Amino acid sequence: MDSKLVERLKKIVGAEHVFDKYEDRYCYTYDASFITVGKNEVPELIVYPGNKEEVAAVLMLANEHKIPIIPRGAGSNVSGGTISRNDAIVMVLTRMNKIINIDRKNMIAELEPGVITADFQTQVEKLGLFYPPDPASKAFSTMGGNVAECAGGPRGAKYGVTRDYILGLEVVLANGQILNVGARTMKSVAGYDLTRLFVGSEGTLCIITKIIVKLLPLPEAKKTMLAIFDDLYKASETVAQVFMAGIIPTTLELLDNIYIKSIEDYVKIGLPVDAEAVLLIEVDGDAAVLDKQIGIISKICKDQGAREVKVAQNEKEAEDLWVARRSAFAAVSRVRPTIIGEDCTVPRDKIPEVVKKVREISAKYDVIIAVLGHAGDGNLHATILTDERDHEEMARVEKAIEEIFIATLEAKGTLTGEHGVGRAKGKYLHLEVGKEGIDLMKALKRTMDPNNILNPGQMLGE
Amino acid sequence: MDSKLVERLKKIVGAEHVFDKYEDRYCYTYDASFITVGKNEVPELIVYPGNKEEVAAVLMLANEHKIPIIPRGAGSNVSGGTISRNDAIVMVLTRMNKIINIDRKNMIAELEPGVITADFQTQVEKLGLFYPPDPASKAFSTMGGNVAECAGGPRGAKYGVTRDYILGLEVVLANGQILNVGARTMKSVAGYDLTRLFVGSEGTLCIITKIIVKLLPLPEAKKTMLAIFDDLYKASETVAQVFMAGIIPTTLELLDNIYIKSIEDYVKIGLPVDAEAVLLIEVDGDAAVLDKQIGIISKICKDQGAREVKVAQNEKEAEDLWVARRSAFAAVSRVRPTIIGEDCTVPRDKIPEVVKKVREISAKYDVIIAVLGHAGDGNLHATILTDERDHEEMARVEKAIEEIFIATLEAKGTLTGEHGVGRAKGKYLHLEVGKEGIDLMKALKRTMDPNNILNPGQMLGE
Repeated sequence: MDSKLVERLKKIVGAEHVFDKYEDRYCYTYDASFITVGKNEVPELIVYPGNKEEVAAVLMLANEHKIPIIPRGAGSNVSGGTISRNDAIVMVLTRMNKIINIDRKNMIAELEPGVITADFQTQVEKLGLFYPPDPASKAFSTMGGNVAECAGGPRGAKYGVTRDYILGLEVVLANGQILNVGARTMKSVAGYDLTRLFVGSEGTLCIITKIIVKLLPLPEAKKTMLAIFDDLYKASETVAQVFMAGIIPTTLELLDNIYIKSIEDYVKIGLPVDAEAVLLIEVDGDAAVLDKQIGIISKICKDQGAREVKVAQNEKEAEDLWVARRSAFAAVSRVRPTIIGEDCTVPRDKIPEVVKKVREISAKYDVIIAVLGHAGDGNLHATILTDERDHEEMARVEKAIEEIFIATLEAKGTLTGEHGVGRAKGKYLHLEVGKEGIDLMKALKRTMDPNNILNPGQMLGE
Repeated sequence: MDSKLVERLKKIVGAEHVFDKYEDRYCYTYDASFITVGKNEVPELIVYPGNKEEVAAVLMLANEHKIPIIPRGAGSNVSGGTISRNDAIVMVLTRMNKIINIDRKNMIAELEPGVITADFQTQVEKLGLFYPPDPASKAFSTMGGNVAECAGGPRGAKYGVTRDYILGLEVVLANGQILNVGARTMKSVAGYDLTRLFVGSEGTLCIITKIIVKLLPLPEAKKTMLAIFDDLYKASETVAQVFMAGIIPTTLELLDNIYIKSIEDYVKIGLPVDAEAVLLIEVDGDAAVLDKQIGIISKICKDQGAREVKVAQNEKEAEDLWVARRSAFAAVSRVRPTIIGEDCTVPRDKIPEVVKKVREISAKYDVIIAVLGHAGDGNLHATILTDERDHEEMARVEKAIEEIFIATLEAKGTLTGEHGVGRAKGKYLHLEVGKEGIDLMKALKRTMDPNNILNPGQMLGE
């Protein structure tokens, strides 16, 4: 990069917040996806702005010189949304990590994008408040990243996703203009809903510099249970039954035998390694109603053929189950070196047929596919266990993934429930939204970022 | 209008669905707002398309000839969103009024835009399901209109607004292209969130031809109570207190003395005509917890100085209170002939100070301003009781409204919580979203409707 430009950027954010050495820049080529570009796409420069004015000044310069900007939080997304390119500046937002205000009276909070999700949750829970979205990465992911990706998590079944908790944003547009959108109130219809347009826009429309979040009261109590099935199909049929009984569980997770065995092998807490599937179910709310709900769900599970239903008797037992669940990806990473976590999401009553289909696809292409779904919201997370160094196997993996996509769309599902499109699914997006959908999204992108400097190549391709 | 064009339109939708007589066209100059254009803006033609293909064909023709299209459901919006203009075709969507499918297993429904909101609610409730948004106009408003305006209602305090229940849409763009956006699943991040961009776009970006709605299980029970205050300020302070106790009531309505007296005079159910304010509060959910919640809320109200708290002892008593509430606008219409229902919404803890300010503004301009708020979500509905034929008074009304807007924005509120911008607030929108916000919205509008045929002049001005 032109050294004068580097000097100007150092002036904007401070020399100590600019990294231009190769070994530093190399560290920003990857994210948590299976996509690796390594030395082919080492970014030109890394900048860590400290406030919105610095973000704006960097963007103005980048826009003038048509330099791509790759915004980055913790880089924990799994769709390649922060994979770098060799003509780009990576803009890391983690210095902007203040919780500006938690407003108990109005149950809203205001925070900078670099705040770690779990830290934020801990802080609001101390005040009896609750920020429900819980992506698996929450211990290290940033709130800005969560907003940019519209992150989900197990609690989506009851509480929805990041989108449902973002009331307003302060953003910087491609031309460096600072814009406040949305409101601090539960309701607002003042003009187009730019807030939700920016949520999930994967860094392609703006840089998020402040987030206004809606909070809930912290539920009084929760109960966790595990239902053990000898039949994966029956287990997956159970999901819709629970909702039909009028109960919306906080989480309803489906784990198949591959996951059960891998997790047990890893954490050794006595999971039933011979079971074909387990459902891990949690309900929360007023203590007075949870036993009743657990009773109804237990009966449904048994009617569906569960061989055993275990209700966690204390916090330790519940936490053990969640430790097991959270270790799932680490556990299957021991099976094969490359883990591709798909993100297809289908209407709840289609889960059985799509799970069956995934099984068939796995057999057809001789590829290991495990299923660990946020089944409560139809988010299946078919997980391909493979080895990216084995090109022959990877060719089969690619075909298997395409067949999973087709099965998902046939079931009126979506290709990505919570991981985002990024680099991983850009070429498949048209299958879901159509050419007209892509064209409209591209037109909106061009309107807002005419020089295509914001995370170019992501979501909609080049 | 050119007679050949009329013939072509008759061919598209059927001659019996086109109205070109003056007396027919005149009927479409108004809506439920206080804006009247009468004979100055009689539209050129009225068309009632019967399906998406007809909508698309009409739009293609209109786009080619640059004829404004004013989409219309029941015309029950109160922001002038369907007020006509003399160069336009009014497109009424009420023929497309089928509930296509209510899917119990997945708790979603698919319906056409002309379905009446209350009819839809009745149908889903028969199946044990629940569509929460409840605009006051629900007995006659259409779902398409609700989506286009992002309608709210009293239950917004707990359940949010129309936006929160729309999973996907089928729309026709200005150029006649039919587009499906969103999903049938609880989660989807496949590209930009066009669904939420269209929700609340007031007919300026697309015509809605199908709606995919998320439903909830119908709550098991509800309880209604009335807290009577001698002090409006104390009553309004109570609102945030209830939420701080960890309870989210379904509805929390604040009525001031003007409303109490007018309603009692109208429906005669024994409201306390000497009270300065009442809070009408409802909680719903599992029967086991409602008494506890009512107890906590009663105590908060008494601690705040309520002179009496009445809990409805049966359905009849509860329904009487709601009949009273729903008759509020009819009741105050008897006081003065012109009712201007403002829609300012503030963070809950700002309600007392803004209510006080509204009182001062009322005195300053000698204008009657009543307050009936969906206080649970800060939606204040200051209501100006006036007479539009009195130009001197209307000049004072205008000044009073502007001061209410300023007070709202100073309290970090929004100018419109649920009524929309339409014609009524277009000239004030920049106060809230800034020039940059307006510019961006206009750019999006131009991108999607380059000939400015969709409801031109609404929201963003000409």
